[in-house]
Amino acid sequence: GYGRFGILYNDTAAGDSTDVTSRFRLQIDATAESDAGVVFGARARIQQNNSDEQQSINEGPDNVLGTADDFAENAGPAGTGINGVRFFARTGGFEVGVGNIFGALESMPGQYPIDLGLTGLGYDYTAFGGNGDAYSSGGNGAAGSNGVEVMYSAGDLSVHVSASDTNDRVAGYVAYTWSGWTFAVGGQDSDDAGDTEFTATAGGSFGIADVTLAFADNGTNGDRVVLAGRFDVGAATDVEVYVADQDGAGNDTGYGVDFNHDLGGGVSLRGGVAHRFNGDDRADMGVRFNF
Amino acid sequence: GYGRFGILYNDTAAGDSTDVTSRFRLQIDATAESDAGVVFGARARIQQNNSDEQQSINEGPDNVLGTADDFAENAGPAGTGINGVRFFARTGGFEVGVGNIFGALESMPGQYPIDLGLTGLGYDYTAFGGNGDAYSSGGNGAAGSNGVEVMYSAGDLSVHVSASDTNDRVAGYVAYTWSGWTFAVGGQDSDDAGDTEFTATAGGSFGIADVTLAFADNGTNGDRVVLAGRFDVGAATDVEVYVADQDGAGNDTGYGVDFNHDLGGGVSLRGGVAHRFNGDDRADMGVRFNF
Amino acid sequence: GYGRFGILYNDTAAGDSTDVTSRFRLQIDATAESDAGVVFGARARIQQNNSDEQQSINEGPDNVLGTADDFAENAGPAGTGINGVRFFARTGGFEVGVGNIFGALESMPGQYPIDLGLTGLGYDYTAFGGNGDAYSSGGNGAAGSNGVEVMYSAGDLSVHVSASDTNDRVAGYVAYTWSGWTFAVGGQDSDDAGDTEFTATAGGSFGIADVTLAFADNGTNGDRVVLAGRFDVGAATDVEVYVADQDGAGNDTGYGVDFNHDLGGGVSLRGGVAHRFNGDDRADMGVRFNF
Repeated sequence: GYGRFGILYNDTAAGDSTDVTSRFRLQIDATAESDAGVVFGARARIQQNNSDEQQSINEGPDNVLGTADDFAENAGPAGTGINGVRFFARTGGFEVGVGNIFGALESMPGQYPIDLGLTGLGYDYTAFGGNGDAYSSGGNGAAGSNGVEVMYSAGDLSVHVSASDTNDRVAGYVAYTWSGWTFAVGGQDSDDAGDTEFTATAGGSFGIADVTLAFADNGTNGDRVVLAGRFDVGAATDVEVYVADQDGAGNDTGYGVDFNHDLGGGVSLRGGVAHRFNGDDRADMGVRFNF
Repeated sequence: GYGRFGILYNDTAAGDSTDVTSRFRLQIDATAESDAGVVFGARARIQQNNSDEQQSINEGPDNVLGTADDFAENAGPAGTGINGVRFFARTGGFEVGVGNIFGALESMPGQYPIDLGLTGLGYDYTAFGGNGDAYSSGGNGAAGSNGVEVMYSAGDLSVHVSASDTNDRVAGYVAYTWSGWTFAVGGQDSDDAGDTEFTATAGGSFGIADVTLAFADNGTNGDRVVLAGRFDVGAATDVEVYVADQDGAGNDTGYGVDFNHDLGGGVSLRGGVAHRFNGDDRADMGVRFNF
Repeated sequence: GYGRFGILYNDTAAGDSTDVTSRFRLQIDATAESDAGVVFGARARIQQNNSDEQQSINEGPDNVLGTADDFAENAGPAGTGINGVRFFARTGGFEVGVGNIFGALESMPGQYPIDLGLTGLGYDYTAFGGNGDAYSSGGNGAAGSNGVEVMYSAGDLSVHVSASDTNDRVAGYVAYTWSGWTFAVGGQDSDDAGDTEFTATAGGSFGIADVTLAFADNGTNGDRVVLAGRFDVGAATDVEVYVADQDGAGNDTGYGVDFNHDLGGGVSLRGGVAHRFNGDDRADMGVRFNF
């Protein structure tokens, strides 16, 4: 897992704020291997963000729980349990997953071309915009909703199909790598008009930079186009940038830039700033350490 | 711990369903040993079933938490914490436990003569039917209810007495093994008319099969008689069967059959089908892996 | 972490009770060290007391969740997740912490001069009385409330400053050790009239006993003076005593005595009795084991 902590600045139409930001992620990977070489396993996470809110019931003025003056309130991050569990069976390049599945669109090459700043700064650079099944580090994902997926890779080819009862989603992608460039196309069928219908990405290296271009038709959530790049600017430092355009009412162009500096031992200093589609500005800086 | 996942089919009077079934169990055993050789310890589990439902409070139409239009809803399995903890002190054949105790009736030889299919398929083959204190893998059990138990074994004899504030239960069993056959009798005093009053089991091997006969007087929950057997049908495969009769309104004879096939490395393929007392039919198949 | 279990007797104006008491604490310390030697880390705990109460929503007479006859109830200890996480960066004698911070007053030498009995028996011997930020083993502490602290120690000197959004607290202490005696003074600024304003402690050894004298001005929560000592009464046994005076309506003098007997292997037998400020009497005895 990893930990990260630092400062997050948020400037919205309602005002601005500067707060401590933190995340703790403890990852539990448990596996067994049959005599035939099939690996069976489960992945769970205990992840707590400083901004998580557990709910509690306030007893109200009468100080008695279970009476009419009780009311619900947010009660801070403590009390975090494990997320929805993902189970899998894997052999060779073939893997079947159930539960809190990764999701085909979420796993598609080019959807997360960069990892901006310390916190992601809103992830406006993810073309499909989360409008599909995705592994949830703190919630259910498709666990409890009959999430199932099949993944296959052979050489330069990778294929991923996933389905769940959430909006009756069925999604898939095919990706192929050719001369160092990876091309991927994905599609989804769903009951939700705001779910992604089609998405395509292309990514590779120009020598001085890794560049990704991505497009998604996210139904009533609008089309999104993203151009993102990563530049090495020293032995231990890189800079990431993106510019993205989002269709729809009140939306506009977004852009961002960050740096990541490796301190060794699994520790890195990270920071970035982004102008979001909705007009907000967000900046962060801090430390991430892997354990 | 272990993980398991597969398919569960359920046919009830209200209709039938086929769903992914899964369980993740992470067991935490923590112990210390005093200079005199007494082992002190605690056991906790983080266990999540796909069918678990955490509760959450929906903010309602006004999108404000703590107001009159809030309502509770089930929110899927994510958020699992540890169960009630069991503490113990053990020396030689003598053990004292407190908290989420095992419970005398639950621990009595012959109450779980088989482990049907992937999921237990309703556990109708457990004579005492859970009408007593039992270790809860996902809940409190007798933790927080002054659960206490004393266990003693010496050679072929084992004795177990447990008590808790739940229905003011006091329960116990005595078991003795004679020429490979184990006989056990148990009883319980309780404030609940539906709690088990008396139960007896006998189990042993006929060479080709391990067989158990069990009876329980479960008060207003009716008498139950169970006959169960396990047959080895190959080097790595066994078949389990049961037939059981349950007294009471609307209840009838139940029966079931399963197979377990060892895939090596702590992995097994399991499946079964059962006709339940209440008229439901249930079938499952899947993989279980220990870690 | 550790486990402990035993018996707790409580005699209050409303009557007396004798119950099983238990605690399970699993501590998770995760760290990484940069090439420059700075240690980054996170601490989380999964801690469950027998007396913890998770809340649940009862479906009420209609057996349907989300309807007007639902009501909240306490549902026992099971379901414990991690507490608020503390993050830190440490190098040499210098440490910065964020999240569920230790808190300057809580960490000040002399605030916990003894550890009475198995359970603390009410901790009336803690001069500042918890009227400041403190690490919470089961809750948020200052996690989610912008908790930040800086700690520095060099030789005989230690300094600790902490702050959080809880009552806008800023607190600090300075401690110095001279000829085996430690003197500490602490202060706090806060929006809450019941928060500690000033506290001072002195502690050291008289040869046969370790003795601490502590004073705190806890604003509207009244002044508190504590005198506490620890006596070794054998190779593996010590006895602790305290007498304390608390100002304010209905409060009086409190006192207590305990013993701790080391059983080896990280196991100890502990018990004590205390007369509390509020007139209650409390006694406990049991076993604690480290793992």
